[in-house]
Amino acid sequence: MVSPTEHSTDEDRDVASGGPPEQVASQTDSDAELAKLEDRWRRSVADLDNLRKRYARELDRERSAERSRVAATWLPVVDNLERAVAHAGDKSDAVVEGVRSILGEALQVLEHLGYPRDAESGVPFDPQRHEVVGVVEHADSTPGTVVEVVRPGYGQGSSQLRPAAVVVSRREE
Amino acid sequence: MVSPTEHSTDEDRDVASGGPPEQVASQTDSDAELAKLEDRWRRSVADLDNLRKRYARELDRERSAERSRVAATWLPVVDNLERAVAHAGDKSDAVVEGVRSILGEALQVLEHLGYPRDAESGVPFDPQRHEVVGVVEHADSTPGTVVEVVRPGYGQGSSQLRPAAVVVSRREE
Repeated sequence: MVSPTEHSTDEDRDVASGGPPEQVASQTDSDAELAKLEDRWRRSVADLDNLRKRYARELDRERSAERSRVAATWLPVVDNLERAVAHAGDKSDAVVEGVRSILGEALQVLEHLGYPRDAESGVPFDPQRHEVVGVVEHADSTPGTVVEVVRPGYGQGSSQLRPAAVVVSRREE
Repeated sequence: MVSPTEHSTDEDRDVASGGPPEQVASQTDSDAELAKLEDRWRRSVADLDNLRKRYARELDRERSAERSRVAATWLPVVDNLERAVAHAGDKSDAVVEGVRSILGEALQVLEHLGYPRDAESGVPFDPQRHEVVGVVEHADSTPGTVVEVVRPGYGQGSSQLRPAAVVVSRREE
């Protein structure tokens, strides 16, 4: 496209300077108007481009926020399945076996959604995946080590559904 | 803003007709350029507006598609809880009671997400919420009535996670 500055050629200037004063004013008005309109158009096009990029990011973010929100509503069900299995202990009948298998299935669903179970002890405390619910003296552990997982966490890396509730060994004073 | 037509006042025209021919051509070029730029700008603004509306709709749609996708991954877990409860029959011990309560909790999660359990029999067949898996002669039913729900459905109205698998009474020939 032709920009307002390109439009102002030598020929135009010569002609304008030879014309009556009103004509000069009118030509200058036109140029100013052109520049203003071009500026508006360019800004609209830039806005459009920014909007496209922003929405693509937003769509991704909203999708993963919704996934995490819906997955989190199932955690109490999974926790209760864990409790039922723990309660059954070594008992083995069809119902208990059924519940164990359903728990395994639920953990697979969570893992498949991107939230694997996290109940590892003996690892260094990591604020991203651990929530401290207790601190103990622990002679055999390096200070700041997870010595017990009270409630498993779900997630990996920066995508955490819930941190693991852990007991850590006391850091040296 | 000033439109190109408003810009072309009587004064402008008088002056232009009094000026040299080159000046007239230049003024006409400016007007055409102005009209072109204004048109481009207006189209950009309209595009921007349409894009905003389209993305808002898309965001809603994507959010609810993700909700339904994630909720659906839990249906096998819920079905197996139902089977475990059915299998336990009238038996009552801590584990069985636990499983019954977990099933109730899971159904509440689904209902809360917008997908209530649908296992009603005695209602007219509705293709939106029912999937026919069998047809039987049934003297006491109006033809086309759901006489048995083989597998519950989840959802309401147009928001269906899964239709109920049903047996319906034969329609009169």
